[in-house]
Amino acid sequence: MKKLWTNCHIASMKNGQYSTIENAVIITHQEKIHWIGTAQDFNLYHSTHLENIEKIDLNGAWVTPGFIDCHTHSIFGGNRSVEFEKRLEGVSYAEIAAQGGGIASTVRATREATDDELLQSASNRIKALLKDGVTTIEIKSGYGLDYENEKKMLNVAKRIGETLPVTVKKTCLAAHALPPEYKDQSDAYIEYICSEMLPKLQQDGLIDAVDAFCEYLAFSPAQVEKVFKVAQSLNIPVKIHAEQLSALGGSSLAARYHALSADHLEYLTEEDAKAMSASNTIAVLLPGAFYFLRETKFPDIQALKKHQVKIALSTDLNPGTSPVLSLRLMMNMGSTLFKLTPEQTLAAVTINAAYALGLQDTHGSLEVGKIADFIAWNIEHPSEITYWLGGDLDKKVIYQGNIRDF
Amino acid sequence: MKKLWTNCHIASMKNGQYSTIENAVIITHQEKIHWIGTAQDFNLYHSTHLENIEKIDLNGAWVTPGFIDCHTHSIFGGNRSVEFEKRLEGVSYAEIAAQGGGIASTVRATREATDDELLQSASNRIKALLKDGVTTIEIKSGYGLDYENEKKMLNVAKRIGETLPVTVKKTCLAAHALPPEYKDQSDAYIEYICSEMLPKLQQDGLIDAVDAFCEYLAFSPAQVEKVFKVAQSLNIPVKIHAEQLSALGGSSLAARYHALSADHLEYLTEEDAKAMSASNTIAVLLPGAFYFLRETKFPDIQALKKHQVKIALSTDLNPGTSPVLSLRLMMNMGSTLFKLTPEQTLAAVTINAAYALGLQDTHGSLEVGKIADFIAWNIEHPSEITYWLGGDLDKKVIYQGNIRDF
Ligand SMILES: [Zn+2]
Ligand SMILES: [Zn+2]
Repeated sequence: MKKLWTNCHIASMKNGQYSTIENAVIITHQEKIHWIGTAQDFNLYHSTHLENIEKIDLNGAWVTPGFIDCHTHSIFGGNRSVEFEKRLEGVSYAEIAAQGGGIASTVRATREATDDELLQSASNRIKALLKDGVTTIEIKSGYGLDYENEKKMLNVAKRIGETLPVTVKKTCLAAHALPPEYKDQSDAYIEYICSEMLPKLQQDGLIDAVDAFCEYLAFSPAQVEKVFKVAQSLNIPVKIHAEQLSALGGSSLAARYHALSADHLEYLTEEDAKAMSASNTIAVLLPGAFYFLRETKFPDIQALKKHQVKIALSTDLNPGTSPVLSLRLMMNMGSTLFKLTPEQTLAAVTINAAYALGLQDTHGSLEVGKIADFIAWNIEHPSEITYWLGGDLDKKVIYQGNIRDF
Repeated sequence: MKKLWTNCHIASMKNGQYSTIENAVIITHQEKIHWIGTAQDFNLYHSTHLENIEKIDLNGAWVTPGFIDCHTHSIFGGNRSVEFEKRLEGVSYAEIAAQGGGIASTVRATREATDDELLQSASNRIKALLKDGVTTIEIKSGYGLDYENEKKMLNVAKRIGETLPVTVKKTCLAAHALPPEYKDQSDAYIEYICSEMLPKLQQDGLIDAVDAFCEYLAFSPAQVEKVFKVAQSLNIPVKIHAEQLSALGGSSLAARYHALSADHLEYLTEEDAKAMSASNTIAVLLPGAFYFLRETKFPDIQALKKHQVKIALSTDLNPGTSPVLSLRLMMNMGSTLFKLTPEQTLAAVTINAAYALGLQDTHGSLEVGKIADFIAWNIEHPSEITYWLGGDLDKKVIYQGNIRDF
């Protein structure tokens, strides 16, 4: 069944720019974009065979690609709001850790939760992201930290894609933190990830990408490289959390393994930017974590631009450092904190985020043959998407060719 | 008709603290709170006369007072998203002003708009605030800058209170900026405000408070004082925009006129805090404007706390420096940027915001005899309200004793 979407303007985000088509028409066929262009061209070439087509008037809306949230830890047990409150009341991080708080508490709560409990709580959070226009989401494991619990998380991620109208990519982040049973034995834990977890989870069909947290308080570049070697041997693309709190060169390492993305990057060097450019690794910036941690070191946007590294933005939704339920809000922070233009922030949550998930051939821009995921915004200009802070902008979300309602 | 709201926990915000009641019950009678207490006390004293009462099970929700947004410029023509984009593309503020941008463009668009156009666009924005739990909102004039257009704005504010389920307080901010017809004649404009606009608008019944923008790029303390004297003679309470970009002592001046609030306050001195404390003037902090302007000078929270000045938070919703559509988001910024605790941020949008509007006897906390404006949040702990950034938290909003739906 074909559908004719009329009376709109389009910011197609082809080539990472607005690539505007005013007074436009879109034809979708099943879940794909069949034709896209001006109303004038449509009238010249297509208006003759209009039987058997459903017409939808978009009332002058601006149409953008559906949003892609390419870095989330959206599945977790519990939350850390009480810890957030204690910290603001002056309790130190060390005291909180001594009381069993921090990431250890999330690992404990995630291990204790059933599949259904995790599905329920994550679905509520992801529905908030969906309301904002997200049509594709990446979800990481990393609070299980053993085979059974990482499998549980990745399986819940899979079920989210089956139960909610959103495309899910599943990333194994077993190398996120050290589980209690491997205290002071990080090499042994890396060995367990490499020899057991990754091969088994791959056999279970639960991994689309492998990620690792390369930081002085997590894993060293040498340890991360071991994980990457195994991922490479299993033909799974890699990603990295790097240069968030210090410059260890994790992003350059990831680039050598043709990583899809390197994420955070506050301490990125120009050498890292060069390496990422050479491997077409996407820079995923996470302004939510930057904001929550009151970070003052800004990622070197100039170096990224100079070396033409594509920039994506994501919520980094997680209970400790980024309890963020809106990707559009990250676009505003991308502009206000990192000085990206609204056009760049829109590319950052569409086509560039698609690259960060290896989905650039099917998602992220409005082009013939791509999946018909798009948002019709009741606004006067696309810059408004970034400009308004918070709130629920009036819009229709089209997912795989159908107006989404959930 | 009485209603019995059961199965909830309450953060009543009495005395500016959570003042928690766990396993609580609320009885409302018409639009007011008739009884509030523990389920146990209710069973002892009240469960005998339960006929003729509607029962609503709140499913274990946490109940807080309805939110009060005590400082908004939510009525305006146009928006400034294209200007926002140009600024990020590197166009200077001077160039934008030379092209007729900045506040002048908002004044022009507001003057050109009809009452109905202003009502429509403001209603859409205010609905976004309402979704977040706002039950009372202050709305300022200040983009009309002549009698007819200020009257138009205040009349639209009045109509918002008549057409949307929200209590509106109307503030005359004629002393916001210099209108083009008074270019270089700020004293003459102040004279016009004092001798004509305020007396007439007061007669029109359109002013609940008088506000002025005391800043080197707006009006001097001496000019503001003239406006305050007239307000005082008309028996209208005053407010001030002060110490946002420089320390002119506007907040101390306002305190001498027993102002309800002094707002912004990045450059507040300890003397100002003392003066505000003596007059029980509320400090309204506006983290949205702070954030959008990438301000680095923090309001002196310690001085405010030391002198027991009550702190409120508000969106400052306006098209130039704070296009913010979520008050809950300002609570998060109150914590993350200004280091207020979640409990303090909740007081800041309830009881303290009520004080900032002179509504403390009827609004802002859950106490017997007050208006039954409250929010039942589907959360585990009240700190979550501040913790989650963005998104639409699951909740029911009760406005004047009825579940609100719009
Ligand atoms: Zn992350
Ligand atoms: Zn203001």
